[in-house]
Amino acid sequence: MRAPDKEALRKLEQTLHVEIPLTRAMGVSVAHFDASGLTLRAPLELNINHKSTAFGGSLSTLATLAGWGLLKLLLREQRPVTVVIQESCVQYLRPVSEDLQATCATPPTGESEKFLRSLARKGIARIELEVLILAGGETAVRFHGRFVALDKHRHPHAQPV
Amino acid sequence: MRAPDKEALRKLEQTLHVEIPLTRAMGVSVAHFDASGLTLRAPLELNINHKSTAFGGSLSTLATLAGWGLLKLLLREQRPVTVVIQESCVQYLRPVSEDLQATCATPPTGESEKFLRSLARKGIARIELEVLILAGGETAVRFHGRFVALDKHRHPHAQPV
Repeated sequence: MRAPDKEALRKLEQTLHVEIPLTRAMGVSVAHFDASGLTLRAPLELNINHKSTAFGGSLSTLATLAGWGLLKLLLREQRPVTVVIQESCVQYLRPVSEDLQATCATPPTGESEKFLRSLARKGIARIELEVLILAGGETAVRFHGRFVALDKHRHPHAQPV
Repeated sequence: MRAPDKEALRKLEQTLHVEIPLTRAMGVSVAHFDASGLTLRAPLELNINHKSTAFGGSLSTLATLAGWGLLKLLLREQRPVTVVIQESCVQYLRPVSEDLQATCATPPTGESEKFLRSLARKGIARIELEVLILAGGETAVRFHGRFVALDKHRHPHAQPV
């Protein structure tokens, strides 16, 4: 995937804040993007629980948004597309005592191409994404999600994430 | 499980709001509790996305909290206990265009008793819970979660949900 310019990243952050108000309450920002993946960040203080670690709901939500955001970037030059989460599994492996950072890995080129081909041909395509949240350099949360992209002209009533 | 009095339900809601600030941003309230389970509610307007349906992150978070809340009620007469989510899988089956209501079913008596016995003996116990979110009378979100309860005296550093 070609790296988007800063304008595309700023627009993704703005889209999140405008369209999903809870992302403002969580303080979600776009931290980093390159060929390997997209990283979203959220400050611990807005996503804390009473043990001063990150709230599980915030962790799974940030991971979901990282997957959604990566696909929005991947598809930004396509026809208008709705991205939907269909299923996800999350393993909470260790507490997170720092600001939350969720990184969605860019899928292998073959999978991305298959996904884009299916979307172009059928107006719908599925893809599996993995998102990791690290804490102290170790994997704290492992998220697997199956997302669906739908051509808005062919599927105008689809549910977004 | 014996139904808790109103004071226990009010206390659960207060615990959520004080200890997990994001639940205030989501407007989470305790809607109902009886022998069959616990229902949490959150208004659509605070948990919306740009298609005027419920945000997936809010749906999975409310489901997680419903499971956590049910265990807090089940364990309210035990020694101080930390409840932790270990793993969850969520299926998003249809859009939710109304206020969010997540109902965690009370586990069968045999499972609850096994869970309480294990907690008393070992200071740790696991249990699987199912949470459903309905929309228009049909299942919109199906959540399965594995939670762990830990005796705080024996496991003082466990991560809560």
